[in-house]
Amino acid sequence: MKKPKKHKSKKLVGQIPGSAIYTGEKSTLKLFIESFDYNKQQCKEKELRDVEESFGFKFSDTVTWLNINGLNHVAEIEKLGKHYELHPLVIEDIVNISQRPKIDEYENYLFVVLKMLYYDTDEKIVSEQVSFVLGNNYVLSFQESEGDVFDAVRDRIRQGKGRVRDMESDYLLYVLIDAIVDHYYSVIDTLSDKIENFETAIFSGHVDDDISQNIQNLKREILRVRKAIFPLREVINRIEKNDNKLIQPSTLTFYRDVYDHLIQVSENIDIYREMIWSLMDMYMTTISNKMNEVMKVLTIMASIFIPLTFIAGIYGMNFEYIPELQYRYSYFILWGVMVVLFISMLFYFKRKKWL
Amino acid sequence: MKKPKKHKSKKLVGQIPGSAIYTGEKSTLKLFIESFDYNKQQCKEKELRDVEESFGFKFSDTVTWLNINGLNHVAEIEKLGKHYELHPLVIEDIVNISQRPKIDEYENYLFVVLKMLYYDTDEKIVSEQVSFVLGNNYVLSFQESEGDVFDAVRDRIRQGKGRVRDMESDYLLYVLIDAIVDHYYSVIDTLSDKIENFETAIFSGHVDDDISQNIQNLKREILRVRKAIFPLREVINRIEKNDNKLIQPSTLTFYRDVYDHLIQVSENIDIYREMIWSLMDMYMTTISNKMNEVMKVLTIMASIFIPLTFIAGIYGMNFEYIPELQYRYSYFILWGVMVVLFISMLFYFKRKKWL
Amino acid sequence: MKKPKKHKSKKLVGQIPGSAIYTGEKSTLKLFIESFDYNKQQCKEKELRDVEESFGFKFSDTVTWLNINGLNHVAEIEKLGKHYELHPLVIEDIVNISQRPKIDEYENYLFVVLKMLYYDTDEKIVSEQVSFVLGNNYVLSFQESEGDVFDAVRDRIRQGKGRVRDMESDYLLYVLIDAIVDHYYSVIDTLSDKIENFETAIFSGHVDDDISQNIQNLKREILRVRKAIFPLREVINRIEKNDNKLIQPSTLTFYRDVYDHLIQVSENIDIYREMIWSLMDMYMTTISNKMNEVMKVLTIMASIFIPLTFIAGIYGMNFEYIPELQYRYSYFILWGVMVVLFISMLFYFKRKKWL
Amino acid sequence: MKKPKKHKSKKLVGQIPGSAIYTGEKSTLKLFIESFDYNKQQCKEKELRDVEESFGFKFSDTVTWLNINGLNHVAEIEKLGKHYELHPLVIEDIVNISQRPKIDEYENYLFVVLKMLYYDTDEKIVSEQVSFVLGNNYVLSFQESEGDVFDAVRDRIRQGKGRVRDMESDYLLYVLIDAIVDHYYSVIDTLSDKIENFETAIFSGHVDDDISQNIQNLKREILRVRKAIFPLREVINRIEKNDNKLIQPSTLTFYRDVYDHLIQVSENIDIYREMIWSLMDMYMTTISNKMNEVMKVLTIMASIFIPLTFIAGIYGMNFEYIPELQYRYSYFILWGVMVVLFISMLFYFKRKKWL
Amino acid sequence: MKKPKKHKSKKLVGQIPGSAIYTGEKSTLKLFIESFDYNKQQCKEKELRDVEESFGFKFSDTVTWLNINGLNHVAEIEKLGKHYELHPLVIEDIVNISQRPKIDEYENYLFVVLKMLYYDTDEKIVSEQVSFVLGNNYVLSFQESEGDVFDAVRDRIRQGKGRVRDMESDYLLYVLIDAIVDHYYSVIDTLSDKIENFETAIFSGHVDDDISQNIQNLKREILRVRKAIFPLREVINRIEKNDNKLIQPSTLTFYRDVYDHLIQVSENIDIYREMIWSLMDMYMTTISNKMNEVMKVLTIMASIFIPLTFIAGIYGMNFEYIPELQYRYSYFILWGVMVVLFISMLFYFKRKKWL
Repeated sequence: MKKPKKHKSKKLVGQIPGSAIYTGEKSTLKLFIESFDYNKQQCKEKELRDVEESFGFKFSDTVTWLNINGLNHVAEIEKLGKHYELHPLVIEDIVNISQRPKIDEYENYLFVVLKMLYYDTDEKIVSEQVSFVLGNNYVLSFQESEGDVFDAVRDRIRQGKGRVRDMESDYLLYVLIDAIVDHYYSVIDTLSDKIENFETAIFSGHVDDDISQNIQNLKREILRVRKAIFPLREVINRIEKNDNKLIQPSTLTFYRDVYDHLIQVSENIDIYREMIWSLMDMYMTTISNKMNEVMKVLTIMASIFIPLTFIAGIYGMNFEYIPELQYRYSYFILWGVMVVLFISMLFYFKRKKWL
Repeated sequence: MKKPKKHKSKKLVGQIPGSAIYTGEKSTLKLFIESFDYNKQQCKEKELRDVEESFGFKFSDTVTWLNINGLNHVAEIEKLGKHYELHPLVIEDIVNISQRPKIDEYENYLFVVLKMLYYDTDEKIVSEQVSFVLGNNYVLSFQESEGDVFDAVRDRIRQGKGRVRDMESDYLLYVLIDAIVDHYYSVIDTLSDKIENFETAIFSGHVDDDISQNIQNLKREILRVRKAIFPLREVINRIEKNDNKLIQPSTLTFYRDVYDHLIQVSENIDIYREMIWSLMDMYMTTISNKMNEVMKVLTIMASIFIPLTFIAGIYGMNFEYIPELQYRYSYFILWGVMVVLFISMLFYFKRKKWL
Repeated sequence: MKKPKKHKSKKLVGQIPGSAIYTGEKSTLKLFIESFDYNKQQCKEKELRDVEESFGFKFSDTVTWLNINGLNHVAEIEKLGKHYELHPLVIEDIVNISQRPKIDEYENYLFVVLKMLYYDTDEKIVSEQVSFVLGNNYVLSFQESEGDVFDAVRDRIRQGKGRVRDMESDYLLYVLIDAIVDHYYSVIDTLSDKIENFETAIFSGHVDDDISQNIQNLKREILRVRKAIFPLREVINRIEKNDNKLIQPSTLTFYRDVYDHLIQVSENIDIYREMIWSLMDMYMTTISNKMNEVMKVLTIMASIFIPLTFIAGIYGMNFEYIPELQYRYSYFILWGVMVVLFISMLFYFKRKKWL
Repeated sequence: MKKPKKHKSKKLVGQIPGSAIYTGEKSTLKLFIESFDYNKQQCKEKELRDVEESFGFKFSDTVTWLNINGLNHVAEIEKLGKHYELHPLVIEDIVNISQRPKIDEYENYLFVVLKMLYYDTDEKIVSEQVSFVLGNNYVLSFQESEGDVFDAVRDRIRQGKGRVRDMESDYLLYVLIDAIVDHYYSVIDTLSDKIENFETAIFSGHVDDDISQNIQNLKREILRVRKAIFPLREVINRIEKNDNKLIQPSTLTFYRDVYDHLIQVSENIDIYREMIWSLMDMYMTTISNKMNEVMKVLTIMASIFIPLTFIAGIYGMNFEYIPELQYRYSYFILWGVMVVLFISMLFYFKRKKWL
Repeated sequence: MKKPKKHKSKKLVGQIPGSAIYTGEKSTLKLFIESFDYNKQQCKEKELRDVEESFGFKFSDTVTWLNINGLNHVAEIEKLGKHYELHPLVIEDIVNISQRPKIDEYENYLFVVLKMLYYDTDEKIVSEQVSFVLGNNYVLSFQESEGDVFDAVRDRIRQGKGRVRDMESDYLLYVLIDAIVDHYYSVIDTLSDKIENFETAIFSGHVDDDISQNIQNLKREILRVRKAIFPLREVINRIEKNDNKLIQPSTLTFYRDVYDHLIQVSENIDIYREMIWSLMDMYMTTISNKMNEVMKVLTIMASIFIPLTFIAGIYGMNFEYIPELQYRYSYFILWGVMVVLFISMLFYFKRKKWL
């Protein structure tokens, strides 16, 4: 097995609390900021060269989506954080990519961390952290690197499809979270396919040594997906239930919808988890069945030929006086006896259903 | 195994929230709408040609049941939804057939999604989504296709049997839900029968390779039924506990009755689930027992004949001086010794309870 | 195994809600009503011929216990229900004998359903439904058939033993429920005995094929008992905690006592459940141990005699020139070698603790 | 196995509620009452001859501890109960020794039942019921028989060590409960030792048949300890949380301390429970490993000698023309071939790590 | 296995409640007290010779951290406790090193107990108890012995890095707890590594007898870590949720951050726990697979050579008239037959996938 890159919890021991340190591995990426600034009438899309360019959006009366890629640029992110008056712990959580999905409510903004899940080209699950800051008229999103599941959202903003251009920043946050949760479905579909493949393999008796290893890996995958998705339920539930002035009542229905999707995904994950534990049982049973089959062949061969060989051995003895040896037809009679024995043994095993 | 048609979660990734897209597979079905419009005195039953015909019922002071079949006709359903002032997310949930059972309360209506369960002709469990909209004087029901469990309800409305014609729309909704929950009983009875059949099969020693596969399939079936039924408890509980002006206090007793039935069904499902996990254990034990039996036959055959063959081998040696070979009765004495050995071995195994 | 009569959930699909239909199998039983009408001074016991005779008790100022046997007489029970102003759903629940233990509070009465458990003559657990209606000055009890656990209660009422004649109908209900719960103890004692018998059997190595079947049956029995008893805790808890005008504060202490007993019974059931799951493990271990023993005998026999037979085979070869064959003492030397081999093998296996 | 005396739940079926019936087995014990009557200045210790002697303490303004041993003397205890105005159900619970740990609050006193645990001389866990009644200025304690864990408490009262003489009866109750809970530690230490011994035994390969039986017994012991200790948490928690005028605020800190100890004991018990379930797994693995070892010996012996014996058999055939038989060195060449075969087989098994 | 020193729960039975008795084993250590006394402007660090030296800090208006090492010096700690007005139970808990993590709120101070976890040089997990007392302007910390995880904190105080010098004692307590929780990450990383090593070992087939023992040890380690960490969540949660005047609102955000870390650690531990249970399954499967392999070799050898040996035996018989023996080419024909048999057997096993 080629060992996958280990995904350590990179909380640096002894570090000053509230100090922002990037804990990921993509330390050579360029900072990349895109901005969408829109209202019902128009939408300006722009790729920003540096953080300072984004400062103006804070006070505009249009809705702004600032999407910041490249968490290794800690200093720039801190600058942005200072301008948008983010708490130092928020900055720390943004660049520390091993956060648990969570929501923190601050006076003027809402901070949400969650995990974007997708399969990479090696069929490994990738869990990338995405942080959102929801302000009065803006949403900041922070990603480790470019490439995400938001392309459909971008299109909708550009072309004014759906409701997004008519609504406030709280709806934009919903749309972004919804895009991520939608993607969970494709991840669990892949998991479901894998389980079905294993089932088919085990049912058809292809039980090589790798199966138990692959099942173990699949278990681990499900545990990781679970860890990424389950805490998010609590996050969305708190958005929906709490009375936060940043989220308007009319948007709550949409968050409830996301919540329903998350519950559905969670239930599926738990079903898959149960299925895979029971897969292991089936695998054990299949091994036992195979062993049984092997034992039967051995038992049949040995049980049939051991007595026959004994008889042959009897007449191979060199006693001076063995009366049977002199009869002319002894040999043929013996063959007859042996064939009868052989056949009746076969019959016996047939009746026992070992053949 | 003929692989059953996969039942993917068809949430379309990247779709605009609130956009109604039919996610099922029956895209060629005709739209079919039936209406029951009744009060204590009379009942008008009609098959409607198009959605517009149903618009009048909204303002009548009789109770109306509109049963819409054919979720692929999204445009028509949207038209209906607009007239009955349904939220876009409600329309989306109606045509997206992979919803989890849920209840959403809106200002003027109650939206309930649940799953109708039945066995199809191939003995596969079918889980069809049914959505209800309860308004002041109407119930809208949406089904994927014709054919349902409501025939007894239709009869009761037509013939004025029971209480249904005397009551409001909240009672009608209860009657429809009750019909679906009643049908769950027949589903879990079938499950119970299947488990008993497996038990009988395993007890009587018929342990072919298919058993573990069938048990796995049964597990999956139970998990699916569980997933369809369990969330409904919460739905009914919320109807019963909450204070919704659409449900009259006198009807609450009936919803509590449905709730009791659901709890009972749920408990049975969990019992079946535990039974089936323990079935797998029994199956393993039976396999081990069979292997034991095979091993015993082998051990007895080998243990009896191996020493005898050794003795025969001794007197087949060609040493020039083996004194026993010259005695006249050696051969017969040897037979005697062998028979004694044979019998005492049998005795030994008898005492060990291997025979 | 003689298959026990199947105990289906007999909710009739498609039936009108609130319509009373007897779901049991004892449809030929006679209706049998006994009445106890008492106060501190006196007690009148009477066997009633028909339902109408009981109507007077509703307005008497003495306490009345009406015990109705024979749920197949649905019409009579409906008549009684009408007189005592019972809700149609209550009547339905009384005659539908597959109810879950529950309590429903109505304006003027309390409706309690529970399960009477006992072992029948075939050592099968019987779970008979008993329903109680507690009114202001009466208790109605409904049983499927005659024969119950209330004889001690009858004696106490007749002879004025204990507190029952001094108290109101709420205390009478308590006494009846207490009698049923007391009987649960004898049921779980029987379960405990069965488990101990299995343990003793497995410990002493009597592992025939029936054991796993019997353990499976015992599991099912425990699950059934659990299903009958566990919901009752919630029922009694609601009586004790809620503020119902029919139950006087001074009687609450007694209900709390019943509740404590139920908790104790429940805990024992869960302990037995855990024990029996672990019994299956022990059984598997015992089978493995037995197989081990069989394997050892085979290994010892084969390991000792296979090399010896090989040696004998060597000197049975017909080569013209085998020097050992000519020596006079070859045969005896060979025997010596074989005996030494035999003994050292035995030693080896002894040291390995296989003998 | 010498079967331990069965410990049935001795609730007598059909008994009048509130009637005191001793359910234990020690029916020949003498009644033994000791009294400690103390305040800050002095302490009078006395052994009472009969119940009446204790009546005066009820109205004294000193703190009194009355320790009553001998629950078989029901009549005396009822007399005492009447004087101290105890509810009949309290008396019933005191003499019914199969109570679950619980607390009942009455107007003028608090009734606490718990279980004293210790190992008897046969290394069996004994669970003896102790009941406490906490009044304004007295604590009554009821034990089945003499001999308890309170000796250190007696010393402290006599010699005025610690705080006990300075405090009220609520503190005395705490001290007594604390003594019992302290003793739980030594019980779970013994459990821990037993588990470690089994582990060591299994690790070192001593897997006789008794192990699975002993593990089963240990499981049962842990379940019993659990049953005795777990409900006590709720009892102490209710003392600590509720607002009972008999417990002074300054004493609550001490009850919280006992509660912490109980939580710790409970957590340890659950850890031991998990360890012991996993012991069974380890035992199964060890058995499988042993079987593997046996199989390997058999396989090696058979695999090596079966082909060699075949070769010897070939040259034991009596065909008239077998060219090899005539060559002078055939025999020696054959030996060479066999030795080579033998060695290469050993090599093969060595490489397979079977040797 | 060298048995690790047993870690008994050393609550001394019969001891007076509130009496401070050191329950650890390091009874010869010197008392070592260090003090940090600082405000925004300055920081005085000092090693104190005796307890009395620390008394002044209680009334200073700077923030003081008193770190006391050496819990065996009970008398000194009691002196300190008296001066700082600590409750006797607090002193008892400080020196009793088998406390469960907990928080107790007193009038003027907060008492927190938790566990510092690290791996010692023998790769054993060490769980050392650390107690904190948070007063208005001081934090007392009590450790069993010198050596801890606070060096980074010391540096930050000395050099004024981070926020610590600007804040009150409540922030200092946070910083110290955070340092301990940070260290949990390295502990669970080690656990994760161990599990991966076992997985790799089992996957690659290195299944010696020690594996099951090592897995059992690892299980025990995880249970111990769990026991040390899980109760701490409740502790921190109570700090964060409760309204304690010692903790300022601005510091709460930081405690929430620690809480998030703890939840993350806890989730990881539960994942590892599930992984390790499934490791045992995999190990069982691997053993079964190995046994299968051994069985196959045996079956192949026996199945091929047993019939061949039988044939050889036939022609070793000494019947006077066996026609085949006279033919000149019999021997060669027989070899041919045998080779064909041999090859077709190999083919058969090949097709069965046993080779």
